[in-house]
Amino acid sequence: MFEPDFDKGNGLVPVIVQDFDSKEALMLAYVNRQAWLSTLETGKATYWSRSRNSLWVKGESSGNVQLIREILVDCDSDTLLFKVEQVGGAACHTGYQSCFYRRISDGKEEIVGKKVFDPEDVYK
Amino acid sequence: MFEPDFDKGNGLVPVIVQDFDSKEALMLAYVNRQAWLSTLETGKATYWSRSRNSLWVKGESSGNVQLIREILVDCDSDTLLFKVEQVGGAACHTGYQSCFYRRISDGKEEIVGKKVFDPEDVYK
Repeated sequence: MFEPDFDKGNGLVPVIVQDFDSKEALMLAYVNRQAWLSTLETGKATYWSRSRNSLWVKGESSGNVQLIREILVDCDSDTLLFKVEQVGGAACHTGYQSCFYRRISDGKEEIVGKKVFDPEDVYK
Repeated sequence: MFEPDFDKGNGLVPVIVQDFDSKEALMLAYVNRQAWLSTLETGKATYWSRSRNSLWVKGESSGNVQLIREILVDCDSDTLLFKVEQVGGAACHTGYQSCFYRRISDGKEEIVGKKVFDPEDVYK
């Protein structure tokens, strides 16, 4: 049974989350062993929230869950890549499609992402 | 002048590296402030190697440098996304196009990536 290298990051492994169809990079999150096993079992991306210090089924509040379509692992087995179907079309709690909605150029940030929902309507 | 949040990760910020054209996720790396500023200045992806504890101009041994095409930052400013032109077509030191050349399914790993070079020919 394959297991990521949880030792290197003190029990946490970073996960690149990518939209399976559009290939947009959606976010970076972290799994511990529990979140990893739960993701495999449920088919829904489940992370470890470092700010809340708890298991986090992505989309449990907003309904914007991430259905696992493919899981890849890097050469060192210390980083994962989840290719997902992003329900609701937005991964970011700000309402943007991707958490990477700001481009940096000449030292300044510029919004380039697409806003899909208004967070005030979703998180009540 | 925009600066990523280096405090959260003890001076390091993770960077998702994505091929600008194919949108393949190539690798995950880390920058400290020095690597970040060097990347901006040179236009070549420069990371902080956690294993060697030193600045790492990606591709300086293999010639497979990563030319920065676009830089994005996530909602928390604690993760970066470099969209790059991968010179030589391979990001991974194993010779694969992407470090994510193994797929996990049913608990087993399967090689799905494309091998571009033989590491023994490149790292002498």
